[in-house]
Amino acid sequence: MTSLSDALLAPRRIALVGASGDAGRLTARPQRYLRRHGFAGELFPVNPRAPEILGERSYASLTDIPGEIDFAYILLGTGQVEAQVASCAARGIPVACVLADGFAEAGHEGAELQARVLATAKSAGIRLLGPNSMGVINTHTRTALTTNAAFEADALPSGRVALVSQSGSMMGALLSRGAARGIGFSHLVGTGNEADLTAGEIASLLLDRPEVDVVCLFLEAIRAPEQLAAAARKAHALGKPIVALKLGRSPFGAELAASHTGALAGTDAAADAFFRAHGTLRVTMLEALLELPPLVAGRRAPARTHRGVGVMTTTGGGGALAIDALGVRGIEAKKPDAAAAAKLAAAGMPTHARLLDMTLAGTKPERVMAALDALRAAEDTDLALAVIGSSAQFRPQDSVAGIVEAAKQPGKPIAAFLAPQAEASLRLLAEAGIAAFRTPETAADAIAAFCTWRAPREVPALPPPAVTLPDAPDEADARALFAALGLSSDAAVMQQDPPEGLRYPVAAKILSPDIAHKTEVGGVMLNILDSAALREAAAAMRARVAAAAPDARITGILVQPMAKGLAEAILGFRRDPEAGAVVLLGAGGVLSELHRDIALRLAPVDEAEARAMIGEVRALTSLSGWRNLPRGDLDALAKAVVAVSRLATLDAVKEAEINPLIIHAEGQGVTVADAWIVPT
Amino acid sequence: MTSLSDALLAPRRIALVGASGDAGRLTARPQRYLRRHGFAGELFPVNPRAPEILGERSYASLTDIPGEIDFAYILLGTGQVEAQVASCAARGIPVACVLADGFAEAGHEGAELQARVLATAKSAGIRLLGPNSMGVINTHTRTALTTNAAFEADALPSGRVALVSQSGSMMGALLSRGAARGIGFSHLVGTGNEADLTAGEIASLLLDRPEVDVVCLFLEAIRAPEQLAAAARKAHALGKPIVALKLGRSPFGAELAASHTGALAGTDAAADAFFRAHGTLRVTMLEALLELPPLVAGRRAPARTHRGVGVMTTTGGGGALAIDALGVRGIEAKKPDAAAAAKLAAAGMPTHARLLDMTLAGTKPERVMAALDALRAAEDTDLALAVIGSSAQFRPQDSVAGIVEAAKQPGKPIAAFLAPQAEASLRLLAEAGIAAFRTPETAADAIAAFCTWRAPREVPALPPPAVTLPDAPDEADARALFAALGLSSDAAVMQQDPPEGLRYPVAAKILSPDIAHKTEVGGVMLNILDSAALREAAAAMRARVAAAAPDARITGILVQPMAKGLAEAILGFRRDPEAGAVVLLGAGGVLSELHRDIALRLAPVDEAEARAMIGEVRALTSLSGWRNLPRGDLDALAKAVVAVSRLATLDAVKEAEINPLIIHAEGQGVTVADAWIVPT
Repeated sequence: MTSLSDALLAPRRIALVGASGDAGRLTARPQRYLRRHGFAGELFPVNPRAPEILGERSYASLTDIPGEIDFAYILLGTGQVEAQVASCAARGIPVACVLADGFAEAGHEGAELQARVLATAKSAGIRLLGPNSMGVINTHTRTALTTNAAFEADALPSGRVALVSQSGSMMGALLSRGAARGIGFSHLVGTGNEADLTAGEIASLLLDRPEVDVVCLFLEAIRAPEQLAAAARKAHALGKPIVALKLGRSPFGAELAASHTGALAGTDAAADAFFRAHGTLRVTMLEALLELPPLVAGRRAPARTHRGVGVMTTTGGGGALAIDALGVRGIEAKKPDAAAAAKLAAAGMPTHARLLDMTLAGTKPERVMAALDALRAAEDTDLALAVIGSSAQFRPQDSVAGIVEAAKQPGKPIAAFLAPQAEASLRLLAEAGIAAFRTPETAADAIAAFCTWRAPREVPALPPPAVTLPDAPDEADARALFAALGLSSDAAVMQQDPPEGLRYPVAAKILSPDIAHKTEVGGVMLNILDSAALREAAAAMRARVAAAAPDARITGILVQPMAKGLAEAILGFRRDPEAGAVVLLGAGGVLSELHRDIALRLAPVDEAEARAMIGEVRALTSLSGWRNLPRGDLDALAKAVVAVSRLATLDAVKEAEINPLIIHAEGQGVTVADAWIVPT
Repeated sequence: MTSLSDALLAPRRIALVGASGDAGRLTARPQRYLRRHGFAGELFPVNPRAPEILGERSYASLTDIPGEIDFAYILLGTGQVEAQVASCAARGIPVACVLADGFAEAGHEGAELQARVLATAKSAGIRLLGPNSMGVINTHTRTALTTNAAFEADALPSGRVALVSQSGSMMGALLSRGAARGIGFSHLVGTGNEADLTAGEIASLLLDRPEVDVVCLFLEAIRAPEQLAAAARKAHALGKPIVALKLGRSPFGAELAASHTGALAGTDAAADAFFRAHGTLRVTMLEALLELPPLVAGRRAPARTHRGVGVMTTTGGGGALAIDALGVRGIEAKKPDAAAAAKLAAAGMPTHARLLDMTLAGTKPERVMAALDALRAAEDTDLALAVIGSSAQFRPQDSVAGIVEAAKQPGKPIAAFLAPQAEASLRLLAEAGIAAFRTPETAADAIAAFCTWRAPREVPALPPPAVTLPDAPDEADARALFAALGLSSDAAVMQQDPPEGLRYPVAAKILSPDIAHKTEVGGVMLNILDSAALREAAAAMRARVAAAAPDARITGILVQPMAKGLAEAILGFRRDPEAGAVVLLGAGGVLSELHRDIALRLAPVDEAEARAMIGEVRALTSLSGWRNLPRGDLDALAKAVVAVSRLATLDAVKEAEINPLIIHAEGQGVTVADAWIVPT
């Protein structure tokens, strides 16, 4: 039997259910496009109303088609999909692809219909692509099995980059933009609603195919994070990178994607953390998705990067534009270091400038090659960038020859930005497998992704803590859980008598699973000086709370020493609807909330990662010796971050927060001042 | 005599000094390009070594040319420029343009040479373009008077947008990118070093010409801010907007621009404030400079904007991309308001969604027109955006017809983003004068500039304060100056006896023009409780300072009441090397410095502008009733900002800072806690 990979990505016997004989109709497109682009396999149009469709024999139903079928593309309306998927199930067709929309993205009824269709497929062991899928294209087998109008084009350029897109129309947009400059794809797959087959699983299948070097993803939502993560790990293992563009960077975009896909919107910071943790390169600009792949094809994320680039130019203004755009993204055009400077001097181009301006030397290939060879020898850069001016427009061969020659040598990657309109040069560079950028901004976007690329992070294998959580945990339960995770702070629960061994002054807080805002019901007292005062305070507090919230269950009084440190932090744990468990560190206080000064990672994290997070929170910079301010106990803070991140292992916890976590001076630890958890 | 405008921008009799008969050489280009593109005026190649240059009569020197000459383009090397400009001066040629580099941008000697050349021109009353200028192109008169290789192209598309570029090579890059999609320029002027004629003055000349609707600027540096400001005011008066792209957004780019232009680098925030104050639209992406002009041609900055857009699409993914990119730039795709919703319902397209998805309705022109007509009727948007999918690629006429028809009606502007590669549609839209965007990111960049566009701000006409500043002002002088500007705080200078009438406790600070860091020499004492203690403190402080800084002049002791408010601010005044006088407001304290949480404006400002600044400082949000925190005296803060901004009128002051300025509760004012000024 045909493997899933071949059935989905290189089907040889294809049924087109609901194919139309009217060439102007959407449902006629798959047959027209398959034939136009030279599909050599067998096609089976299914249409009970005509014996022939576009000159090919038609079948009344799937049942009538002789022999095995690899792939059925169901082109009928929403209402007919269920029956047709049942037919596919009955025939054991390994992949059924559904064009129609009106499923999970269209509300409750659609979601139920989608669930029924999926159940039918699953029970028969067949796989579903879509619904709302524009199909599958394999350029190597000339299989344009799609309803996407972009395949009206005469050419179907081929390449070694696969595209998986949740948006069918963007598949066409990227195909046409690539074709205009000689960039082709190996496959294009429209995943639509991803009821069954997800972008992640399809990416995994694509990575295993020999004709694929890089997989690009156009995502509206992260739907099955564990499958995307598995694909990303495979990508790293195989040295076939994944590049992703994901919508939802703005709140409006996120809202739209959620309403469009029927998924819950996660936060963009969590999505960013997800891609970073798994070694997936994320770009933010449309054409960067086309332009980045040659830069990473055949490469693995390096152990470390320099966030630095060596830049040569034949256009002063163009070079300055590129360097400025890179700088805005935090990537520095480096002055030649000793190694690069020596090579440049040897080649007769001595310079110590941030931009090697060859305007006078021009684009003589041997000069350009020597310049790039020297620049990529620098030890503090990640790649060399050539910025080419008007010669790229009028003398394409000349202008790219030096770049192409230099790129043939092993070493750091070489990329090019062409300042003028220069299709022929873009095409030559694409043919040579060199990353070429149309604009300084996409160059910066793609290069920034490359210069911050990391191997998939090892998620520390930690056992879940041995804690049983009550249904309605109060703060004492939260503290017990954090203590079990390795983060404990002095505190005791008092019923009648003041606890022994606590340092006064203390704070006392009412404990109740029913009271979210203790202060508002008079349930918090600070600066209690001794045990007698504590006894009085406890009684007064119980009386106040009983009056303000008569129905609340009171589980005791939490007593903790008053603590004052150098700074406060917020330490949180969430399960992002898209990216999964994340740990979040922010500086405490009103101002930090205003500044959104936080670091976020997929949870759990190890101490090294926790330290990296601390380094990202600007307000915490003041604790690491900045301007001779006293140093905070960042070791203890890092351990606290690790502890909270371990909540990821505990399915019973949905959210948790310590706010504030008080950070004391170096060696003095941290104190949990207030904490809560929300069970799943 | 020919006007400067005609001589520079439409010369009829042109001398090419140093023209070469070798068609392959740079110095042959102006003659070749002028002839190739159909220049109908008279050309006078000057070359003593040949009687004919490229088939035209050549002259041995400028002196030999009969009759008046409008424009001399000096193509010779750096060393020969001085003599040739002298010849131009002797002949009274109104504009001499210099190609050579090696002047102010190349160091001290070059700067001296440039000064001499300029003096020669000025003394004869002639004007200089360059040095380092690639010349002037006027497409309406077919005058391709340039060395820029981009004019090798056969076509010289014309348009009504003028480009002034400090970078010669970017002139070519923009020309070629525009030509590829039917966007032409009226003029292109390379200003180079701007020894004499600056981008601002040339922009003013261009604005007066009837063939110009919009002026675009490609700037590496702001060189003559008052001329750019004058041009911007004229632009607003004439309804001919100016659109600017300026390098230096990143520190590396700023450094490079400074080294390239020989100018001091200002800060990008000051440049931003400059453009905003003068009603100039600033874009940050290269192609946005091409794409924005049709959106603003014939329009004036509106009184207010909504930062909102109505969006329709024929491609779900493309529409979502555009909305997400807009959202990242702070522009909201608005759900149809009552007015728009009613029109949409009437047109049979009822929706309340953020994105009017016409995927099924398709691109039938009348539907698209009705949709855009309805969307632009919304009262809370600034424009309507059409996002077009594959039809833009395969049925250009159809796909743009509705947009073109809608745009013919008066009302808010209409713009388009085309998701696929679609040159023909881009060209049709360009011909119809409709802003069309190639990428979602340039759409967002340009639309964000449009949605935040403001008329030039009236700079309040304020008299300089009647203050004479000592050569070495101390803090008391600074306070006296601020008091003269309308910002006074209780404080007194004590020589022997404690001052009368101050509220204790007080702080005492040593006054000395020679001591920058008073604390370090023991020159500050806080919380002094009464006059006896003050007397003692003063004596002790004088003794400590005398020991620590024996040479410092002591001008007294500043005594001020201890003050504690709700928050602290930094209020500063600077003269930016590019943009000029600016006033800066930031929240006080270490954290705000880390967060770069500041607002900056050209100075002076009025109270309304000061209030807008307060609204931009995130940390000050906490003083305006946020989360029920106590309100601060923002009236007094605004008045303080106005007072400090008035330093702009006082040439004697280079820099000043109040840090901290203590902000008290509503009605309680502000207190200058510490202040300094730096004289010019």
